Amino acid sequence: MSLTIDATSGGRQYKVKDIAEADFGRLEIDLAEAEMPGLMACRTEFGPAQPLKGAKVMGSLHMTVQTAVLIETLTALGAEVRWCSCNIFSTQDHAAAAIARDSAAVFAWKGETLEEYWWCTNQALNWPAGDGPNLLVDDGGDATLLIHEGVKAETAYAKDNKNLPDPDSTSNAEFKIVLTIIKEGLAKDPTRWTRMAKNIVGVSEETTTGVKRLYEMQEEASLLFPAINVNDSVTKSKFDNVYGCRHSLPDGIMRATDVMISGKTAFVAGYGDVGKGCASALKAGGARVVVSEIDPICALQASMEGFQVAPLEDVLESTDIFVTSTGNKDIIMAHHMSKMKNNAIVGNIGHFDNEIDMAGVFQWPGIKRQNIKPQCDRFIFPDGHGVIILAEGRLLNLGCATGHPSFVMSCSFTNQVIAQLELWNEKSSGRYERKVYVLPKHLDEKVAMLHLPRLGAKLTKLTPEQSSYVNIPAAGPFKPAHYRY
Amino acid sequence: MSLTIDATSGGRQYKVKDIAEADFGRLEIDLAEAEMPGLMACRTEFGPAQPLKGAKVMGSLHMTVQTAVLIETLTALGAEVRWCSCNIFSTQDHAAAAIARDSAAVFAWKGETLEEYWWCTNQALNWPAGDGPNLLVDDGGDATLLIHEGVKAETAYAKDNKNLPDPDSTSNAEFKIVLTIIKEGLAKDPTRWTRMAKNIVGVSEETTTGVKRLYEMQEEASLLFPAINVNDSVTKSKFDNVYGCRHSLPDGIMRATDVMISGKTAFVAGYGDVGKGCASALKAGGARVVVSEIDPICALQASMEGFQVAPLEDVLESTDIFVTSTGNKDIIMAHHMSKMKNNAIVGNIGHFDNEIDMAGVFQWPGIKRQNIKPQCDRFIFPDGHGVIILAEGRLLNLGCATGHPSFVMSCSFTNQVIAQLELWNEKSSGRYERKVYVLPKHLDEKVAMLHLPRLGAKLTKLTPEQSSYVNIPAAGPFKPAHYRY
Amino acid sequence: MSLTIDATSGGRQYKVKDIAEADFGRLEIDLAEAEMPGLMACRTEFGPAQPLKGAKVMGSLHMTVQTAVLIETLTALGAEVRWCSCNIFSTQDHAAAAIARDSAAVFAWKGETLEEYWWCTNQALNWPAGDGPNLLVDDGGDATLLIHEGVKAETAYAKDNKNLPDPDSTSNAEFKIVLTIIKEGLAKDPTRWTRMAKNIVGVSEETTTGVKRLYEMQEEASLLFPAINVNDSVTKSKFDNVYGCRHSLPDGIMRATDVMISGKTAFVAGYGDVGKGCASALKAGGARVVVSEIDPICALQASMEGFQVAPLEDVLESTDIFVTSTGNKDIIMAHHMSKMKNNAIVGNIGHFDNEIDMAGVFQWPGIKRQNIKPQCDRFIFPDGHGVIILAEGRLLNLGCATGHPSFVMSCSFTNQVIAQLELWNEKSSGRYERKVYVLPKHLDEKVAMLHLPRLGAKLTKLTPEQSSYVNIPAAGPFKPAHYRY
Amino acid sequence: MSLTIDATSGGRQYKVKDIAEADFGRLEIDLAEAEMPGLMACRTEFGPAQPLKGAKVMGSLHMTVQTAVLIETLTALGAEVRWCSCNIFSTQDHAAAAIARDSAAVFAWKGETLEEYWWCTNQALNWPAGDGPNLLVDDGGDATLLIHEGVKAETAYAKDNKNLPDPDSTSNAEFKIVLTIIKEGLAKDPTRWTRMAKNIVGVSEETTTGVKRLYEMQEEASLLFPAINVNDSVTKSKFDNVYGCRHSLPDGIMRATDVMISGKTAFVAGYGDVGKGCASALKAGGARVVVSEIDPICALQASMEGFQVAPLEDVLESTDIFVTSTGNKDIIMAHHMSKMKNNAIVGNIGHFDNEIDMAGVFQWPGIKRQNIKPQCDRFIFPDGHGVIILAEGRLLNLGCATGHPSFVMSCSFTNQVIAQLELWNEKSSGRYERKVYVLPKHLDEKVAMLHLPRLGAKLTKLTPEQSSYVNIPAAGPFKPAHYRY
Repeated sequence: MSLTIDATSGGRQYKVKDIAEADFGRLEIDLAEAEMPGLMACRTEFGPAQPLKGAKVMGSLHMTVQTAVLIETLTALGAEVRWCSCNIFSTQDHAAAAIARDSAAVFAWKGETLEEYWWCTNQALNWPAGDGPNLLVDDGGDATLLIHEGVKAETAYAKDNKNLPDPDSTSNAEFKIVLTIIKEGLAKDPTRWTRMAKNIVGVSEETTTGVKRLYEMQEEASLLFPAINVNDSVTKSKFDNVYGCRHSLPDGIMRATDVMISGKTAFVAGYGDVGKGCASALKAGGARVVVSEIDPICALQASMEGFQVAPLEDVLESTDIFVTSTGNKDIIMAHHMSKMKNNAIVGNIGHFDNEIDMAGVFQWPGIKRQNIKPQCDRFIFPDGHGVIILAEGRLLNLGCATGHPSFVMSCSFTNQVIAQLELWNEKSSGRYERKVYVLPKHLDEKVAMLHLPRLGAKLTKLTPEQSSYVNIPAAGPFKPAHYRY
Repeated sequence: MSLTIDATSGGRQYKVKDIAEADFGRLEIDLAEAEMPGLMACRTEFGPAQPLKGAKVMGSLHMTVQTAVLIETLTALGAEVRWCSCNIFSTQDHAAAAIARDSAAVFAWKGETLEEYWWCTNQALNWPAGDGPNLLVDDGGDATLLIHEGVKAETAYAKDNKNLPDPDSTSNAEFKIVLTIIKEGLAKDPTRWTRMAKNIVGVSEETTTGVKRLYEMQEEASLLFPAINVNDSVTKSKFDNVYGCRHSLPDGIMRATDVMISGKTAFVAGYGDVGKGCASALKAGGARVVVSEIDPICALQASMEGFQVAPLEDVLESTDIFVTSTGNKDIIMAHHMSKMKNNAIVGNIGHFDNEIDMAGVFQWPGIKRQNIKPQCDRFIFPDGHGVIILAEGRLLNLGCATGHPSFVMSCSFTNQVIAQLELWNEKSSGRYERKVYVLPKHLDEKVAMLHLPRLGAKLTKLTPEQSSYVNIPAAGPFKPAHYRY
Repeated sequence: MSLTIDATSGGRQYKVKDIAEADFGRLEIDLAEAEMPGLMACRTEFGPAQPLKGAKVMGSLHMTVQTAVLIETLTALGAEVRWCSCNIFSTQDHAAAAIARDSAAVFAWKGETLEEYWWCTNQALNWPAGDGPNLLVDDGGDATLLIHEGVKAETAYAKDNKNLPDPDSTSNAEFKIVLTIIKEGLAKDPTRWTRMAKNIVGVSEETTTGVKRLYEMQEEASLLFPAINVNDSVTKSKFDNVYGCRHSLPDGIMRATDVMISGKTAFVAGYGDVGKGCASALKAGGARVVVSEIDPICALQASMEGFQVAPLEDVLESTDIFVTSTGNKDIIMAHHMSKMKNNAIVGNIGHFDNEIDMAGVFQWPGIKRQNIKPQCDRFIFPDGHGVIILAEGRLLNLGCATGHPSFVMSCSFTNQVIAQLELWNEKSSGRYERKVYVLPKHLDEKVAMLHLPRLGAKLTKLTPEQSSYVNIPAAGPFKPAHYRY
Repeated sequence: MSLTIDATSGGRQYKVKDIAEADFGRLEIDLAEAEMPGLMACRTEFGPAQPLKGAKVMGSLHMTVQTAVLIETLTALGAEVRWCSCNIFSTQDHAAAAIARDSAAVFAWKGETLEEYWWCTNQALNWPAGDGPNLLVDDGGDATLLIHEGVKAETAYAKDNKNLPDPDSTSNAEFKIVLTIIKEGLAKDPTRWTRMAKNIVGVSEETTTGVKRLYEMQEEASLLFPAINVNDSVTKSKFDNVYGCRHSLPDGIMRATDVMISGKTAFVAGYGDVGKGCASALKAGGARVVVSEIDPICALQASMEGFQVAPLEDVLESTDIFVTSTGNKDIIMAHHMSKMKNNAIVGNIGHFDNEIDMAGVFQWPGIKRQNIKPQCDRFIFPDGHGVIILAEGRLLNLGCATGHPSFVMSCSFTNQVIAQLELWNEKSSGRYERKVYVLPKHLDEKVAMLHLPRLGAKLTKLTPEQSSYVNIPAAGPFKPAHYRY
């Protein structure tokens, strides 16, 4: 990798598609601000005190217009920020340009190669003065992974100065790149990651998948710094995951294919929060929806909502639109696709592109790829039928449309801001150990509160007598921790 | 109270409306069994081993057809059962008759006075041989309350044989009766409740409100035996509370009033699980729905589903149907009703009848009561406008219709059976202390699993590779404890 | 048939179940009035002028609470009214009692035999003074049929005084009774029907099925008096048929069976206005719905709404709830039912009970009937599985619940009142020939207008410029005749 | 206007944005064919006989991918085709390029000026040999208007060779251009339009607005050739207008603004077929929807579906998204917009851009226009609040997204093909006079039938007994003409 890094006139580094798109990006950021009341309220409430003054924040999270508003909220609170995307297709280039020009060091563009992707991640972690971040905003855990793998390798290397990571030891294309980066770095600076980890006061993680990794590290006691699980704030997982996908799934499908959803049969693999949003959106759009599940509770929920529950194999030939949202791998395999209807649509809105067997598709003997438009390909099987795959199996809502809308991302990102504040404020208090935490209920409720006025929603207040009767403070928290919403 | 107790030819006690309704009750029990696959599966799986042999189970839970299937599942597993209802209006007399004739000692009829209600509860706790139950199935916590208050009074009395509970010390009509019963009992047997409590290995509690009481007792360390919180099994609170109410709320309104829901404006106070089911049902029925909430998170959920969120005061004069589902008191006051439209409908599906200010209505100067049919009254204010109140403010779905349908009650009650088994199996193991527990995830999932085949739902299975990839056993449990569904 | 006719103290004839139910009937009529703004507005607008003074109105239409408000609107406008029900199960006895006591001659009770049914129809046509009605309100066309068959028989008989109708000439049980009545009448008064027909200035017909008969008579030029097709007023067929059934179908199913609709698979035969309401209600209730259709346009509509479209045979074994709404016969045959799931529910909301093959069921070798409650029977096939049939195949919403709610019936019945006024006002003008007419668009729009304020709906007004631009009068009519709504 | 006309190597004329986009256009046309079963079935059924051999077809209808499949169906049946768009923003340039290269003379590009628009219309009517079309496919009636205005002017001019149309006689910018074109043409060829009109055997018109014009001409007897009203085929107006808009309204809003619909308040002006689709889509997307109507019947329908019905003025300040779908003018005026929320979204999906007062906006003192992206502008009022107007008030679904999806357009366009066939087949039979006709029911049903298999829908067949019982042929037509669906 030999990519050149650009710099603003003020000297801030960046690497984006086209800095000239900054004006258009700014325009859309301005519009998004009006839809992100939680973030704007944070600027108003916390901005004057500059509570993040001195904090170096590194983010690895889809570099979209909404993320731009998050970044500028962090800078408005005093932070110095470097950013990369957490998905090779999800950057909105105009948003990246505006932030690069105006607010933070950005390394992201739409359509990165895997090598470029990890180069960007590495750059975002690399403060020019040679040091690293104090805080991480992570989505999917790639920044956290790189640091942990770096420390692991340095520790091994430190024993005899010989033990280098071996990229050939893995068949996973992406992990191979991670090991290569670390290996090359070891030659130049054998303690970089170790020093960096020590300076990090914590990470706030955005998604189900990233959180899962964190809990596994917590369990094996390998976590190097505290983590706040933003995903499991109610105002994140029950909003962004459900309502965000309810919006962006049909948006992505329609922008990519212009297909009529009404009258079609759709299949949604996985009925978690994301799957619930997707199935609901497709039903609302007039499709007949079949859901697959491994978990009997979620399956029973799907049944109660009127969805047929069946495994993929049962509906392979009658379905028009297939969506994966499982958080697992190998959901729709190439052999499944070889038996689908002509022009069946296949897309993923789950954790990674391995929900769909892209490798199997590419390797299918005699298959032909017909590119229809960016992020929309038709793969023609030797028998002549084609399958339309969205965003090469990556997140179709980000690849084919613009991801989740500002309002719901404001809920998620207000949690991020609050988590970053919490980690930084408590950096010396010892309150957070090397474990995974969720935000306390009252902060979760505060995030919701900040979003009600924009929708004209008016709360009812408990009277003192009612508050005493139910033993709930009039200002909340209103529910026990285990409450499911 | 001097009610006579009847007995079957075999000597089992009962007090029901009309034992001659037993045949009709049996017919409906037969039909319900086909809709309660979880309970029937328990009979098949556990029946042969008679695991509840020797257990004396007392239940205080709406004596309906569905409860009859629960009772006969408990007896099929070997238990000896005594039962009362937990609501003065909720008994289905034919179901009570069938159970009284065939299976268990029942003390319940539709339309009990408050005195009769507590007499029934007392009888159900009173085994003829003079002893009490080993296990409680409670709904709302009244049986648990009576025992705890009994023990409290006996402890106080034991100090000097003088300290008697004083019914005049409370203005709460119902608690006055409780104290009276205990006071009268103390004279005859000053250690009855204390002995009874010692023999109880645990209680399984059905509802939000009862569970709340239990957690409060746990906190103040006054709980006398272990409790299993059935309400917070996912297969209870996210099914019974949501889908049960979604079914039974419009059912109750339609049976009571025959009013057209389409086109009307409806108000739902409280957007918890019950409120979610209610608001969804009214919207599905073609009403425009306004929701009130104290909790900003639930309020934001309501907004995202397209409901207007506003306090009662804002919509008092434009609303046709008012429903309370808050778990709190004093939601709709008499002065509110005095300003409603003519023939506005007011009903409660929340915890107790005090969600609606019935006392205030009865005392309103110059008000007239016009009884339309059982559980449906029109209260005419002096200005001539009337308000139709359902079930005197008690649970309208049980008072005006037949409560939740069998299928969803099968989910709840299968949790009850499993909880009872768990308590009885572990009675000597020390596994359960005097605390509140929820059932482990795998049992919750099992309950769901037992209900899928009836709906034709087919689960997908994890492959070993997938199971390993996501670190989830192929047979579950599939989710972490904090997962919200 | 030798039934005695009762009379009020004032001498008005009636035959009802129990005149003592009149108070309860009056109470419900009072409540219904508040939900029937169109009828009440007619009383206010037309009452003072007494435009139906001198008109004798005979009605054959479900004798329900809503019909009571219609009857009393007709009497408020000056008419003298006699009434019978058009369905053996649909009378609400308390409503019949109230009308009999207070307003009109009623011959109707719930659960008539077929003989009793036609006796009632005959009585309602039989004014004590020996003459007949001037106006008919018909539903399904039975009153119209009786008169036309009477005239036909009298004409034949007049030729030679020998040619009597032969009840044995038909295998249709009901038509046999009709012929018997006419035959017996001929002996006593061989010109009764002919005189009656001459005095009738017209009929207003309520339903699809009755209208169909009228158009057939118009085509063969056998119609004896003008007819107004109320069914095809938009404010009737697109309201009563759709929204009425959307309300009353689940209401009937739930009252009869208490079955949970959520999660179930339902089948709706026929996707006309009634079927659209039914399918929509079942989907809203959480069922998965399959629709059958013979008309490709309606089938495509069903598809676009997300319903699977398939013939009955394809889903026989997987369906839980079967509903017929076709207007045709032989939809669900006994052999179909012999293959259904145990406790499958079968009900009809279409034109007649022959949509379901009741005859075939009764004659099935070895079948057993288990009566669960009135209008709800389980038929047990020899292989042991049972099928629950509602209302013996008759209209389940009227048989098992209380039919359509007042508000939507107010739309239909306001059309009836306007039609009766129109016929009576034009009785001498020659405006209406012996043909079938629909009400003009501006009257249809007026009916809608009268119902908006009750729902808080506020119309927008055309400006003169807008009115001129679109060439539509500001006061309507707003649409061309062919507009489909 | 001096635009140059391009030509293919074969000599066919065209004027498109970029002929190099033809390959991409072809790819999307190929995909669309799989979604347009009705058109493809027409090719199969009629193609071999070449029934349109010799017919010159001129079309004025949005030049989209779907229209491309229509055009190539007409050419597959033998027609020679020239085409223009009927909206300055609705052309999809890649589709225009593919058709221009492969199949027909096209004059259309996205973003025409009004002068260019009418130049294109004129070119499409101008066969190189100097003659004009035999058949018109019109959408909105602009081609029909131009010819009728041309003939009117030629008739006036023929009287004294002096009487020229006066473009200054009108303040309507568009009609000024029409008159200019005709005036200029008169100098060169004073009988062109008259000769052209004589050669036209008929027009088939696509939309409500165009049909309205035709009926007005029929009424004043000024129609120059027969017209088939395609809009009022059930398979057009109840599908394209309803389901097409249900799909494309949110699609257009989301592509233009990325705004979250959930939780917002939306206002839909007009609850006709288009408004019904729009209101339903916004509700399904989680918005709270308010509807305005002038017609009490449609207003009552909106109420029954749970929509609030209120005039614009009542909700001006609380609404986030405004949509016009009235078919009238002056619905949302500049003064309305001056009082809206900041960043309120305003768009039109009704007949013309004058539903929104664009002129008033442009002339508002001190207003500033901020172009966000093509077809999306923010107009900033002097008080600082902005209003986002989509597609400059033109059809937002075509301007901001890709219009209606292929499947539903296949229904509409199959009607067009059948109408064109009918007109051409009957050109000499005298069957069609200078009037407006709708297609017969059996052809309408045929269109639906051709679309069922693609959705997996299976029809039920009438038995001979059933057919006879209901007096409906087993092969249809299944409904009377007045049936409303």
